Amino acid sequence: MNHFGEELAVAVRRCRNPVVVGLDPRWESLPASFRQNRASDTESQAIAYEEFCREVVDVVAPLVPAVKPQAAFFEECGPAGMLALANVMAYARDKGLLVILDGKRNDIGSTAEAYARGYLGRSSVWGADALTISPYLGADSLQPFVDVAVERGAGLFVLVKTSNPGGGMLQDQLIDGQPLYRTVAQYVADQSAGATGQGGYGSVGAVVGATYPDQLAELRAAMPNTWFLVPGYGSQGGTAKDTAAAFDAQGLGAMINNSRGIIFAHQRPEYKDSFGDSRWQGAVEAATEDMIAQLQAETAVGKLGSSDSP
Amino acid sequence: MNHFGEELAVAVRRCRNPVVVGLDPRWESLPASFRQNRASDTESQAIAYEEFCREVVDVVAPLVPAVKPQAAFFEECGPAGMLALANVMAYARDKGLLVILDGKRNDIGSTAEAYARGYLGRSSVWGADALTISPYLGADSLQPFVDVAVERGAGLFVLVKTSNPGGGMLQDQLIDGQPLYRTVAQYVADQSAGATGQGGYGSVGAVVGATYPDQLAELRAAMPNTWFLVPGYGSQGGTAKDTAAAFDAQGLGAMINNSRGIIFAHQRPEYKDSFGDSRWQGAVEAATEDMIAQLQAETAVGKLGSSDSP
Repeated sequence: MNHFGEELAVAVRRCRNPVVVGLDPRWESLPASFRQNRASDTESQAIAYEEFCREVVDVVAPLVPAVKPQAAFFEECGPAGMLALANVMAYARDKGLLVILDGKRNDIGSTAEAYARGYLGRSSVWGADALTISPYLGADSLQPFVDVAVERGAGLFVLVKTSNPGGGMLQDQLIDGQPLYRTVAQYVADQSAGATGQGGYGSVGAVVGATYPDQLAELRAAMPNTWFLVPGYGSQGGTAKDTAAAFDAQGLGAMINNSRGIIFAHQRPEYKDSFGDSRWQGAVEAATEDMIAQLQAETAVGKLGSSDSP
Repeated sequence: MNHFGEELAVAVRRCRNPVVVGLDPRWESLPASFRQNRASDTESQAIAYEEFCREVVDVVAPLVPAVKPQAAFFEECGPAGMLALANVMAYARDKGLLVILDGKRNDIGSTAEAYARGYLGRSSVWGADALTISPYLGADSLQPFVDVAVERGAGLFVLVKTSNPGGGMLQDQLIDGQPLYRTVAQYVADQSAGATGQGGYGSVGAVVGATYPDQLAELRAAMPNTWFLVPGYGSQGGTAKDTAAAFDAQGLGAMINNSRGIIFAHQRPEYKDSFGDSRWQGAVEAATEDMIAQLQAETAVGKLGSSDSP
């Protein structure tokens, strides 16, 4: 029987890092070779996105435990984009990566269950190992996702404290002296504590932004059995140091996502001159390795694998 | 220039009712003819969903102003389901219906913009007239949707007070004595008041459940320029009387959704004997007409069209 929380721990230990490469294809940022001699209609874009994401996966599969395709950019290309998304997800799985689909879905009752049945688990039509979901509709909207995830050994990441500046509009409102995100955090913590795998973590995780290091620390303490998916690293301003509090003493407990900073590294000043457009895959590799090194230097990630090394 | 809030008013006046038929195809509820001699794999299901929804549209297009496809049931069928969804949306538009896609999408910044660009407006690849969105990520996640909607004359319905029993977990939490949903309501009210069309309504609407009539009345008073999309009628327990407070004195301001109660009316005790599986379209028609009659009898909807009648 699969257990997503446990599979994540195994993959992070094997790779000795918790980096998630976000697959956020954007037409205007693609290396020139993907856009040359190609129309910019949505079907052509979808084909380019699939090719580009496959080639990113080729580079990062030996280095990191997981990728996170962003559904929005594929959906923007219509049905052809959704086919590209499915193909990219299958390709990443075949290359040994865990696939976290960033869809931020939410609905109630049997509709939530339809999303869950469609997306969650390798036997589903989309075959995601995990899915991001949004909690505004309350616990009876989250529970159908949790039930299907548990049944299939798949995972979830519930939005708790997001990385954007305006996230506080609802999330930081005080309820009896505690911010609203703690209400969501409590639900998630209960779900993960109730079904932990080897390693002590459950399969129902939380999204907590790298841009709020104090809240990362607070939530790490409050949710000892919960995997965090941490966006906001790199382009949004979060540093390796900012993520330190998200990890437990062994270097587990948090997955750190980087999207643009890795897949479009050929445009970053640090890599532009050495790689540029034509050697964009070299830039992806260098940016991934640099992020891993930064996390290993600045956080408990450095301790990963030390117990099973000679 | 299109203006969704205005188009909705025109369509409601023309049809003399505000009924939205929810297109929520479910395999086990389809009339037998759609399942006979057909495999139950996701691709075959997608084809059946498309055929079924087209035939529902054939019945309801002359009667109601809008349909609301539920993305989840199409997504559950994988990429083939998404193609079916796109085809159903195009078919409904061609038949003169407004199409409100129920996707409850949400994300931040340029990712939110990607969803908005993909879905909103008839010139987009999906071609939705309006989309439902979720507010947990805050105003900076809603604004990109609003900006694209305004630019394209399309509409939005933001989740405010949902119809499910557990919605209160976050939505009803008190912030300085006011429930959290009022914070979202205020944002939506400001957006709609800032850009009203003929008829006094904006294009940024709110989802408010029929299962909470007191809150419907409270929010109608607080959001005089905001269209409501009201789920929860019928199968979830809301009655025509429960929706009365959602309307303004002219009978405008609220769209009342019914999904299962209409599209699977052939299974309801009231229609089963007269129609049954083989005459399921007759049941759809009868259920739609009965719902219209109930709203006309119990709410200000009865006043629609009286001014331009002879």
